[in-house]
Amino acid sequence: MSQPVVGIVMGSSSDWPVMCKAVEILESFGIPHEYKVVSAHRTPDLLFEYAEQAKSRGLKAIIAGAGGAAHLPGMLAAKTIVPVLGVPAPSKYLKGVDSLHSIVQMPKGIPVATFAIGEAGAANAALFAIQMLGNNDPKIAEQLVEYRESQRQHALNMSLPPE
Amino acid sequence: MSQPVVGIVMGSSSDWPVMCKAVEILESFGIPHEYKVVSAHRTPDLLFEYAEQAKSRGLKAIIAGAGGAAHLPGMLAAKTIVPVLGVPAPSKYLKGVDSLHSIVQMPKGIPVATFAIGEAGAANAALFAIQMLGNNDPKIAEQLVEYRESQRQHALNMSLPPE
Amino acid sequence: MSQPVVGIVMGSSSDWPVMCKAVEILESFGIPHEYKVVSAHRTPDLLFEYAEQAKSRGLKAIIAGAGGAAHLPGMLAAKTIVPVLGVPAPSKYLKGVDSLHSIVQMPKGIPVATFAIGEAGAANAALFAIQMLGNNDPKIAEQLVEYRESQRQHALNMSLPPE
Amino acid sequence: MSQPVVGIVMGSSSDWPVMCKAVEILESFGIPHEYKVVSAHRTPDLLFEYAEQAKSRGLKAIIAGAGGAAHLPGMLAAKTIVPVLGVPAPSKYLKGVDSLHSIVQMPKGIPVATFAIGEAGAANAALFAIQMLGNNDPKIAEQLVEYRESQRQHALNMSLPPE
Amino acid sequence: MSQPVVGIVMGSSSDWPVMCKAVEILESFGIPHEYKVVSAHRTPDLLFEYAEQAKSRGLKAIIAGAGGAAHLPGMLAAKTIVPVLGVPAPSKYLKGVDSLHSIVQMPKGIPVATFAIGEAGAANAALFAIQMLGNNDPKIAEQLVEYRESQRQHALNMSLPPE
Amino acid sequence: MSQPVVGIVMGSSSDWPVMCKAVEILESFGIPHEYKVVSAHRTPDLLFEYAEQAKSRGLKAIIAGAGGAAHLPGMLAAKTIVPVLGVPAPSKYLKGVDSLHSIVQMPKGIPVATFAIGEAGAANAALFAIQMLGNNDPKIAEQLVEYRESQRQHALNMSLPPE
Amino acid sequence: MSQPVVGIVMGSSSDWPVMCKAVEILESFGIPHEYKVVSAHRTPDLLFEYAEQAKSRGLKAIIAGAGGAAHLPGMLAAKTIVPVLGVPAPSKYLKGVDSLHSIVQMPKGIPVATFAIGEAGAANAALFAIQMLGNNDPKIAEQLVEYRESQRQHALNMSLPPE
Amino acid sequence: MSQPVVGIVMGSSSDWPVMCKAVEILESFGIPHEYKVVSAHRTPDLLFEYAEQAKSRGLKAIIAGAGGAAHLPGMLAAKTIVPVLGVPAPSKYLKGVDSLHSIVQMPKGIPVATFAIGEAGAANAALFAIQMLGNNDPKIAEQLVEYRESQRQHALNMSLPPE
Repeated sequence: MSQPVVGIVMGSSSDWPVMCKAVEILESFGIPHEYKVVSAHRTPDLLFEYAEQAKSRGLKAIIAGAGGAAHLPGMLAAKTIVPVLGVPAPSKYLKGVDSLHSIVQMPKGIPVATFAIGEAGAANAALFAIQMLGNNDPKIAEQLVEYRESQRQHALNMSLPPE
Repeated sequence: MSQPVVGIVMGSSSDWPVMCKAVEILESFGIPHEYKVVSAHRTPDLLFEYAEQAKSRGLKAIIAGAGGAAHLPGMLAAKTIVPVLGVPAPSKYLKGVDSLHSIVQMPKGIPVATFAIGEAGAANAALFAIQMLGNNDPKIAEQLVEYRESQRQHALNMSLPPE
Repeated sequence: MSQPVVGIVMGSSSDWPVMCKAVEILESFGIPHEYKVVSAHRTPDLLFEYAEQAKSRGLKAIIAGAGGAAHLPGMLAAKTIVPVLGVPAPSKYLKGVDSLHSIVQMPKGIPVATFAIGEAGAANAALFAIQMLGNNDPKIAEQLVEYRESQRQHALNMSLPPE
Repeated sequence: MSQPVVGIVMGSSSDWPVMCKAVEILESFGIPHEYKVVSAHRTPDLLFEYAEQAKSRGLKAIIAGAGGAAHLPGMLAAKTIVPVLGVPAPSKYLKGVDSLHSIVQMPKGIPVATFAIGEAGAANAALFAIQMLGNNDPKIAEQLVEYRESQRQHALNMSLPPE
Repeated sequence: MSQPVVGIVMGSSSDWPVMCKAVEILESFGIPHEYKVVSAHRTPDLLFEYAEQAKSRGLKAIIAGAGGAAHLPGMLAAKTIVPVLGVPAPSKYLKGVDSLHSIVQMPKGIPVATFAIGEAGAANAALFAIQMLGNNDPKIAEQLVEYRESQRQHALNMSLPPE
Repeated sequence: MSQPVVGIVMGSSSDWPVMCKAVEILESFGIPHEYKVVSAHRTPDLLFEYAEQAKSRGLKAIIAGAGGAAHLPGMLAAKTIVPVLGVPAPSKYLKGVDSLHSIVQMPKGIPVATFAIGEAGAANAALFAIQMLGNNDPKIAEQLVEYRESQRQHALNMSLPPE
Repeated sequence: MSQPVVGIVMGSSSDWPVMCKAVEILESFGIPHEYKVVSAHRTPDLLFEYAEQAKSRGLKAIIAGAGGAAHLPGMLAAKTIVPVLGVPAPSKYLKGVDSLHSIVQMPKGIPVATFAIGEAGAANAALFAIQMLGNNDPKIAEQLVEYRESQRQHALNMSLPPE
Repeated sequence: MSQPVVGIVMGSSSDWPVMCKAVEILESFGIPHEYKVVSAHRTPDLLFEYAEQAKSRGLKAIIAGAGGAAHLPGMLAAKTIVPVLGVPAPSKYLKGVDSLHSIVQMPKGIPVATFAIGEAGAANAALFAIQMLGNNDPKIAEQLVEYRESQRQHALNMSLPPE
């Protein structure tokens, strides 16, 4: 695969069932990407290192998924000017309400673009990253138009039980 | 001003005290932008028109602020592949919890990048749009690094009462 | 079936298990109706078209079910003066709290009549539409009185374990 | 005024600042209406009497506003087949979250059409009642189209500080 | 059984698994009681009749369980001066948060004594009714003291895995 | 004043503006009562002592108001079989949601009768205590009937602006 | 085992699956500890006794887990100056939101150190107690450094499906 | 002042009105301390540096206050084995619910001891730190006993309006 332009990080391998939805989208669009476990709390130095090298390594977006007191997206954002996209992972008892608050309520100055709790959010973070790339790449923009059209067709063809 | 690359829309002029924080950031970075009232519920056709023309008009990001059943960001996103950044405006009784849910919980396929409720979210949406632009513009990237440094200095110089 | 007077729309075929409760009620009252998938986010043009034609097609009520950032009812309401009845579908993680906020918190000027989260809300939206029709149709009003009476009898006959 | 077709009831005179928004809308459309205090908890018999006579008195809609454990809309609905529109009044400490739950979460069989918390909800309940009437009265329908147009113009003409 | 002094009512037979916990407690204390389905929304007249006759029939407490827009306890309370004890039944999607709000947030003037959501609340409503009776019946008071002691012993004897 | 039959306790003198509503009701009915500050956290031994002596001192009900992690009602209830009525005081930031949870969610075995957050809850706790006394005192029952009637008249006489 | 320095208490044996996570951590660090059931509501005197003797028995920390109206940690804290660490147990319907409020929202003067809802909170309370001990015991501090390193290695070695 | 043993950090000087309550407590007990602004998002390197040096600098506890997506306490905790005490600062719109979630819901392995939202939490975090110190310092323990006694006296002497 070419040099990755989108990096996907998650706090634990247990986030994979959610975050793989982002990977699937990136793969289907043929966007060079990478993914790995980076834990804000267990590997804070790796987090800083990852963020510090993101720009020079050519990343155009970092998608970060985390649950509970989800500090990963915000701390990455604090250490890089590469756009960070946050995905609130559903937590065991609070179902991601805690993760959503921890990710979206960033203070003025350090933005994290936040998406829906869980699988839909992971897929949409990837699509958003692709839309960002599409701003400067007509071929990707065309792919996005096609994807939208396929979604439209899919919705139009959904069948309900006959009346 | 040059051709705008960031469009800011809001559901009502009453959202201005929040959304002007996005305008201020864009101005301080010298990013060409525009702003106007577009109401999802009162001017739905204008919303569609705005979204449909966004790409050809050269917009690289749309920042949309709305409160309550805040449909503006999501409906713009449904009609364009230009990245849409949503800002939940604080609502009178629910304080923006409703706005946040209406903006962030988008279904798979149509992403809206969501930021914090209120002023901080508006400023951060603008900063995020600038970070997107900075991916392809070294001068903007440099400005962002300087902005971060000025924030850092500001925090370091904050004074507390003497011990 | 005669020309439909109640239209039921839902964002996805996955909403059928909830929205079929509205269909069942309309069928049991013999109210001409139609139902189809209309997605605010994937088929926004269809949404506008459906709303724009609703009045001339003779619809007296539109029942719209959606989950998460549920924009379908509100956007239909923005494009027609036919009464729109919204049903918050239960979402995966937030259980419909998000859907409820997105549907009920409409701004002044564009009303959506909102019902309970899930199956009960779908059934009640249909009953409410029938009550609207009953305002001008004594036969339907009579049916409603009978339905209420059957509910009453059903409740009176509910058996509990013997004391 | 002619025989009222819309009845507005509220649990206390302290609800007037919210519920007067419904009255204002009905007045501006020239819809014959009435309003009075009916307390579910302090005047339960009056509540039943009001509901029982609603249909024979010619009411086509009852708009009921209440706060906290807001039983007024639901109990009216239990006693009449006239459509009941519920408005959650903002409560002192929970800001209407309690009122919203008490009004919208009706069980299957007895619908209450629920609108937003507070003033916007009161105005929208009135507009919804008018939309119901507009189903069978072309002149009212025309008024609604004009109202929508005036809203549209109002939004289009909203001024923001100059760029 | 003797003339009942505690009446247990519930909105539906589906509330039995929760409300039977109240019945079990009353039975274990030998308190004369009755239970039946009374639906605020489907049998409102029965509700009023039940409340109106409660005092003359010798009831000293009414335990009412209901879910969602749980109007049963509050409307009973509005129609009788017999103490009403409310039990929020867990609802399908909101888990009883809605029921709790609908029961506990009564306006000044009409009290409903509210207990925990679900089984614990049902059992405690019964115990509370017995404590009320124990105020004037030394034998019941003695039973309560014994019950407390048995609870204490039960807790003291709870075994955990060996250290 | 005669020997008190209702004791009112609160965690701090700052709860007086809420809890005085209970005192006012008891005074208006001429019910012998007492009130004092008993803090679960600062005077836990006094709490135990108060609870342990409640029955022998002739109290028929204890009304306890507290805010935040409101342990006062539940711990009193754990130490006496005299019925305990809990009033959630509104807390500074969470507005009594925390207080409500801490009071109403008691485990099976130790009931606390819970009332609305704030002033309405305090007044209703007092009315409920009086209803308990009214079970065995026809004169109090009569007073309650009169109080209800005066409430009814008050509601009936509420004036709204002229139509 | 030596004289325990950390005491673990829980309101019921049903809390064991959560609280055993604290025990496991203490065991793995070889910290002398004890655990038992102490119920705030069923064994209040035992609670007081436990708290009163904690300091003289040599406890340096008490870890208390409880659910719902979780009074155990706060009442222990009211009766001892030994640091109390509270673990909100997940409750049946509110999933521990109630427990969290009841434990964390303590009034000024009586602190309870609160940890996450459920298993993670129990484990972290134990780790925090060990960190407290590590302040004065270099060997424990060293163990903590090793534990952190093992966590780091574990995170670094987490495998995701191959790209 | 002697070498500080408790460090107080806050994300912004705007947190001072809350965090000064911790300083006041430490001062009144004569505990050597320091306080400064350390922003997780604007000065992340300073955060790491502060945490990394905490142990060698002799700190026995770090009290960290932050609001919104409050990452400061958790990231400090990730970088040191010195006990970290988190204080959720009240946020503008969500009133600290977001801050509480971001601080308390830490994953297994990295504990943050969390206290109440706002001023009470700040004071209690300081008291808790002192209780930790009191474990090994009889003089501090004695001070704590006196503080508790003064609190008790203060509560006992609270005056209410005369009966």
